[in-house]
Amino acid sequence: MPLVRIDLIEGKSDGYREQVGEIVHQAMVDCLNVPKDDRFQVITEHSKKGLQFDPGYLGIRRSDDCIFLQITLNRGRTTEMKQRFYRAVADGLHQQLNMRREDVLISLVEVEKEDWSFGNGEAQYANSPR
Amino acid sequence: MPLVRIDLIEGKSDGYREQVGEIVHQAMVDCLNVPKDDRFQVITEHSKKGLQFDPGYLGIRRSDDCIFLQITLNRGRTTEMKQRFYRAVADGLHQQLNMRREDVLISLVEVEKEDWSFGNGEAQYANSPR
Amino acid sequence: MPLVRIDLIEGKSDGYREQVGEIVHQAMVDCLNVPKDDRFQVITEHSKKGLQFDPGYLGIRRSDDCIFLQITLNRGRTTEMKQRFYRAVADGLHQQLNMRREDVLISLVEVEKEDWSFGNGEAQYANSPR
Repeated sequence: MPLVRIDLIEGKSDGYREQVGEIVHQAMVDCLNVPKDDRFQVITEHSKKGLQFDPGYLGIRRSDDCIFLQITLNRGRTTEMKQRFYRAVADGLHQQLNMRREDVLISLVEVEKEDWSFGNGEAQYANSPR
Repeated sequence: MPLVRIDLIEGKSDGYREQVGEIVHQAMVDCLNVPKDDRFQVITEHSKKGLQFDPGYLGIRRSDDCIFLQITLNRGRTTEMKQRFYRAVADGLHQQLNMRREDVLISLVEVEKEDWSFGNGEAQYANSPR
Repeated sequence: MPLVRIDLIEGKSDGYREQVGEIVHQAMVDCLNVPKDDRFQVITEHSKKGLQFDPGYLGIRRSDDCIFLQITLNRGRTTEMKQRFYRAVADGLHQQLNMRREDVLISLVEVEKEDWSFGNGEAQYANSPR
């Protein structure tokens, strides 16, 4: 169900970008109760000018490896779950891709169960308990 | 008012992508009370690696023709309206473009009337009844 | 905190696009209480076919210089603040880039404080008063 948009500056390999996607997805499975095969991601490269970010907002030093993650997902995760998720993403990207934890920006957008169709023109979650 | 993002894998013609946009818009007019000339769409092609999706989540077999639709629209449509909309999009894409209904992923994001400006720096919907 | 997506038709200079980003950001600082260094923007060029918009919806004449702004930000701004922001963006783009005010489309998406991580895997706003 989550729809994940990953935006980063061009110059990385296909494999790097795909691995970013995998790490983000694994953190969603581990921390947000997202099913293993519920993976839908748009990964977009931009020119350096196309990704504008302050290099020091909130005292966090960002580099050109900065990535933006924007995730649309169902309402209902607690703040604690979100906090665990943010940490798992930053840790995973750091440990597996040597990315700086400072370079990981995450934005969540919550929606309702009836706001999804996963194919066949049906609202598969509309009548599910969550 | 709806702002529609359409993401798909590269390799289709301009005409194909434009027709996807037209079919999605017509379904919004028919099922969601969207005015005929209220069409605003961002259609983006991606490399195959740029659009990551599980090929079988919820038992739905997706192919490389899979498209992601993400639609920002005003709050207030009923679940039944959304369900009719999902069906109309999948049916329209199947009937007019021979797209597989399994390949149509839809995500809605609801916002408020005052969250829009359609030009001239004004919030045209802010004081409208809906 | 706001995550800003700016979509426009290709053919403008890097400097033009960057200035669009700066003007939008300044209006957020001036009208929405956004900190000066809280700037995160994705600026994407599209082919003419990739940005579909009605040329006259609500009686506003749009040209190929039309830009779409979609801004994810924390809930809590009043309608009056949003209205001042829309005007400031359209005025700024008109005065500094000679853009037609008719060509500025804005969409806001509101989220909660705990929906952001600005780096280091932390939810920096989760426990802040707003």
